[in-house]
Amino acid sequence: MKKINVGLIGTGRLGSMYAEFLSTRVPGANLAAVADLIPERAKTCAEKFDVPNWYTGHQDLNDDLSLDAVIVTATTVNHREIVVDAAEKGKPVFCEKPMTLDLADAREMKSVIEKTGIFYQQGYMRRFDKAFAAAKREIDAGTIGTPCVFRGSSRDPYRPSLEYLTPENSGGQILDMAIHDIDIARWYMGEVRSVYAVGGILAYPEIAEVHDTDNVIMVMTFENGRLGEIDISRNGVYGYDIRAEVLGTEGTVQAGYLRDTAINIMTKAGVTHDVVPYFPERFGDAYVNQLNDFLENLIHDKEPMITIDDGIAGLQIAAAATDSLHRNSIVLVADY
Amino acid sequence: MKKINVGLIGTGRLGSMYAEFLSTRVPGANLAAVADLIPERAKTCAEKFDVPNWYTGHQDLNDDLSLDAVIVTATTVNHREIVVDAAEKGKPVFCEKPMTLDLADAREMKSVIEKTGIFYQQGYMRRFDKAFAAAKREIDAGTIGTPCVFRGSSRDPYRPSLEYLTPENSGGQILDMAIHDIDIARWYMGEVRSVYAVGGILAYPEIAEVHDTDNVIMVMTFENGRLGEIDISRNGVYGYDIRAEVLGTEGTVQAGYLRDTAINIMTKAGVTHDVVPYFPERFGDAYVNQLNDFLENLIHDKEPMITIDDGIAGLQIAAAATDSLHRNSIVLVADY
Amino acid sequence: MKKINVGLIGTGRLGSMYAEFLSTRVPGANLAAVADLIPERAKTCAEKFDVPNWYTGHQDLNDDLSLDAVIVTATTVNHREIVVDAAEKGKPVFCEKPMTLDLADAREMKSVIEKTGIFYQQGYMRRFDKAFAAAKREIDAGTIGTPCVFRGSSRDPYRPSLEYLTPENSGGQILDMAIHDIDIARWYMGEVRSVYAVGGILAYPEIAEVHDTDNVIMVMTFENGRLGEIDISRNGVYGYDIRAEVLGTEGTVQAGYLRDTAINIMTKAGVTHDVVPYFPERFGDAYVNQLNDFLENLIHDKEPMITIDDGIAGLQIAAAATDSLHRNSIVLVADY
Amino acid sequence: MKKINVGLIGTGRLGSMYAEFLSTRVPGANLAAVADLIPERAKTCAEKFDVPNWYTGHQDLNDDLSLDAVIVTATTVNHREIVVDAAEKGKPVFCEKPMTLDLADAREMKSVIEKTGIFYQQGYMRRFDKAFAAAKREIDAGTIGTPCVFRGSSRDPYRPSLEYLTPENSGGQILDMAIHDIDIARWYMGEVRSVYAVGGILAYPEIAEVHDTDNVIMVMTFENGRLGEIDISRNGVYGYDIRAEVLGTEGTVQAGYLRDTAINIMTKAGVTHDVVPYFPERFGDAYVNQLNDFLENLIHDKEPMITIDDGIAGLQIAAAATDSLHRNSIVLVADY
Repeated sequence: MKKINVGLIGTGRLGSMYAEFLSTRVPGANLAAVADLIPERAKTCAEKFDVPNWYTGHQDLNDDLSLDAVIVTATTVNHREIVVDAAEKGKPVFCEKPMTLDLADAREMKSVIEKTGIFYQQGYMRRFDKAFAAAKREIDAGTIGTPCVFRGSSRDPYRPSLEYLTPENSGGQILDMAIHDIDIARWYMGEVRSVYAVGGILAYPEIAEVHDTDNVIMVMTFENGRLGEIDISRNGVYGYDIRAEVLGTEGTVQAGYLRDTAINIMTKAGVTHDVVPYFPERFGDAYVNQLNDFLENLIHDKEPMITIDDGIAGLQIAAAATDSLHRNSIVLVADY
Repeated sequence: MKKINVGLIGTGRLGSMYAEFLSTRVPGANLAAVADLIPERAKTCAEKFDVPNWYTGHQDLNDDLSLDAVIVTATTVNHREIVVDAAEKGKPVFCEKPMTLDLADAREMKSVIEKTGIFYQQGYMRRFDKAFAAAKREIDAGTIGTPCVFRGSSRDPYRPSLEYLTPENSGGQILDMAIHDIDIARWYMGEVRSVYAVGGILAYPEIAEVHDTDNVIMVMTFENGRLGEIDISRNGVYGYDIRAEVLGTEGTVQAGYLRDTAINIMTKAGVTHDVVPYFPERFGDAYVNQLNDFLENLIHDKEPMITIDDGIAGLQIAAAATDSLHRNSIVLVADY
Repeated sequence: MKKINVGLIGTGRLGSMYAEFLSTRVPGANLAAVADLIPERAKTCAEKFDVPNWYTGHQDLNDDLSLDAVIVTATTVNHREIVVDAAEKGKPVFCEKPMTLDLADAREMKSVIEKTGIFYQQGYMRRFDKAFAAAKREIDAGTIGTPCVFRGSSRDPYRPSLEYLTPENSGGQILDMAIHDIDIARWYMGEVRSVYAVGGILAYPEIAEVHDTDNVIMVMTFENGRLGEIDISRNGVYGYDIRAEVLGTEGTVQAGYLRDTAINIMTKAGVTHDVVPYFPERFGDAYVNQLNDFLENLIHDKEPMITIDDGIAGLQIAAAATDSLHRNSIVLVADY
Repeated sequence: MKKINVGLIGTGRLGSMYAEFLSTRVPGANLAAVADLIPERAKTCAEKFDVPNWYTGHQDLNDDLSLDAVIVTATTVNHREIVVDAAEKGKPVFCEKPMTLDLADAREMKSVIEKTGIFYQQGYMRRFDKAFAAAKREIDAGTIGTPCVFRGSSRDPYRPSLEYLTPENSGGQILDMAIHDIDIARWYMGEVRSVYAVGGILAYPEIAEVHDTDNVIMVMTFENGRLGEIDISRNGVYGYDIRAEVLGTEGTVQAGYLRDTAINIMTKAGVTHDVVPYFPERFGDAYVNQLNDFLENLIHDKEPMITIDDGIAGLQIAAAATDSLHRNSIVLVADY
């Protein structure tokens, strides 16, 4: 099997995980170069996974003629610059979510990608999770009749650093956390017409310093008249709890809740079991499936399931919901 | 033990259930009279449960000097007239939810009750359900820290008759179905400040004839800044699915989902179990507990847990949400 | 509806429960007399449930010409004498499990009952439990194909008093606890051919004083070649855990495990729920169903589902298993 | 990190899985050679996983001086010859379960291993499964008090080929299937004193041709007086259902039952979910953990958790149980 030479830009927490996956669980990939603005980080990653080349600047990696494709796991604020540079150099791109923090940047990326005609695949690993994908198949198969109502929940087990939570960095809680639920909602239900969000600082008073929230509920209407709700929380302290449910005319399908260990302990204190702790444990396989899918698409010249339009649409809804939250008003997604 | 002579007004579906409970599972009650506008129905009920007297008009029952208390399970539109009459005749009253369909009527009822000084207990049986009550105890005990987010779902297994669904009759889907979730939300979280509701006809096109909806999502903010969501559906075709969840700073508590039969069937088709079919199976014990509580309060001259103010508050929120739904705007509950 | 005048012999823990059920939840019964060797107990029970007559001796109750039927919830060692007396006086009898502690006594009871031709129904309330009955229906419907293997578990939440545990009183752990599992095993699988039991004192060393065990495992073969296993324990300290499973050629059906309260609590300590605490909570409805069935059979002159032969067969298997335990050998049930 | 050069003997179904794991998920291993009696199979495997050398005879692989260790996944009947040869050539060995089909062979292997002083690790991957390991930790931590009763179940989703089922090939159902449950029982409870097994042909009549069974129940006593039960079945047609439970004086711990996909489907037909289909899905991670542990032990010169004595003990109990089954008698393990 011919392997595809892949360059990875961004070797932070998620980037390192990708480096490991590309080295061990994605047989079609040859991780041939890594890049990171922090030289030490790029070097360490390269050594750990026997990667022959490492760079500091993304331009150098994009210039590397031995590379067949580029995977972007850099800080979101740099996505636009990296992707535009890669596109202009003709490199196929896989870009982590969210595309950008800024809709104008995202639209510029789209225009460059269309002009250069490169292959672009947007990352949303939940679509490659076994449970979320199985729910999609059941919905498409008509098992629950016509979908009526979507409910999504995302709960992180703890609060990230305040530095991370600065809206300039994370884009605010909705963009940071609900972008996945929004993508799944669109996938299961259709396009979103209007959105209204309420939020608050209910668990971590210090979040006031960075002008973010720790809990948000969004209610949505879809273009086809269907209804949706997403609630996100930074205080899911009992585990990483990611759920989606679609209620249809013939039944409901619920996806997501996952035990970590298949044991029950039963004592006078009750029956106890655990919950999966965080996203690497919950979505590790989904990330691997997604990377394999990316290479498969490249090799066989197939359209990706998730396009740049999906990236933009998610961002647009998140931007609309964030604006709704700030202005306390119902907004139309089309206005963004 | 001295028994309390109870009169029951309204012997329809719910009223008959109450008659049976009062005859067999509420040791402190002596069901001494029933009344129904349909004479045949009152008579049949009286005969079935060995009730000595039956009446057609509620006035006659309220006039019956042998009765110590009146329980109202009549059609909601008649609640005001019945309760006012009972109050003026000095009869203690237990009144089923919803109090009325109309806030002005509810406020008039309150004013008469305050003037006459009679005992009044508002019915909301979910507070007497073992699971919902246990969740309340856990919340009050601080098990989940400070409550942040409320989520409630109520799904009926099938659509009622179109006749029942006429808004003049049922008050619309929110008043008809979400009134329970609203009461539980207030009980767990505090008073509601604002509400926004979206809804649609997604499962039963014929509901358009009666200008109602079959699915609604409401999002709420509470006076204390907390957040809430309620979704109600007429197409929970797989069973009667009533849930509530409160996410707090230290954990979450989920109440409600109930199997009907303690068996699992595991074949090549998967692992299958059932769901409780409808409200008599789900809340039968809660109704009995509530009736026992009513008599206990009467005998020992105790304040009821659920007062006329709880009845009015639920109605006010439901009216606000219904108006929000019709006008597609965020509304303040205090304006209603 | 004509009510059947019922006399209840034995008003201890279970007898009181029966008195309450007969007074409130068995519409076809009129509890007309109670008897107990302890006069105070009979009197208290009669007063509590408005029973017109009470007796000390069972003979007096059996002599009461106003009674249509007799229900026996007395101490097991007195069953033979009571039932024989009732039979000779022509009274239809419902007798709690176990029939007796002694096979010879049981066979004598059968012979008197056959001679007198009275109606006799053996009590085994598990057959009237919703879950165990649903499992039986699934097995009979072929949902799991041909049954192959039976597994039953019965765990009590705490140790009874040592006085109760004396083998002369309880008949030993197998007769006391496994008699229900044995009956369910026969109902689901067929007749038992051989049995081998192992046991020990593993949780409560003081049980050595009364020469009983606290944990036993029995393995069985059925006449049709099928296989079975029953394990019983006095240290199910986490709740009252009663389960049965039948594995067939097309699947498996599991019955029994029951939450007490429909809530989940999820904190850093894990996800916790409860288990039903003890038999009144677990099998209260089953007892009521069984009593209603008894009266139904009497009124309509129907054969009972559980006959005296079922009583004897269960006892015979329990006696064989107890002997196997004591002798540490495989025994044939037919030899007992 | 220095990698250990590993040779793999046997590249059938399980061997291929091991080859993949060693190539991709065991970072300390360099799969340097494979061997198989079927040349085509060895060659294909070598090509698929870029293994530099392949052999037909195990002797040639054992002779390969570049190899640091040998992993044996060959047909069980050849284990003795392969392991003895490797030991005599000084190669550290990891050997799949069961060690052999014959106790005398196993004891000869032990004597050669002791004489040559090579490192030997017995394979029982269940001990490396997250759930079974977590249960062991809870038991050791005293969460359930003192263990009293062990219950284990192993159910395969379908019948293997009759050729595989020949006792000369598989060793009979107990050796083939219960060997894992026996090892877990010893690990949780202690050494086994006596065993009695019953079995039958209940699902697949054609198994009579090869003189095996399709369902077996074993009951055990342990040297410390504790009790145990294992049931195994070839007709767990609904999935691969592997469970263990230990009931102690303070509670119970249940391990094993695993959903495959985190979704629930709820329709009028009930609530449905799936079960993990077979052992690669259920125990894939456990196999990987076990291989990593083997290399870790080799590198750091540590004693393995599972020794040749564990291999022999499991085999001895299985042999005793098989004899008990054939002779229909209770047997002492020490007699084998």
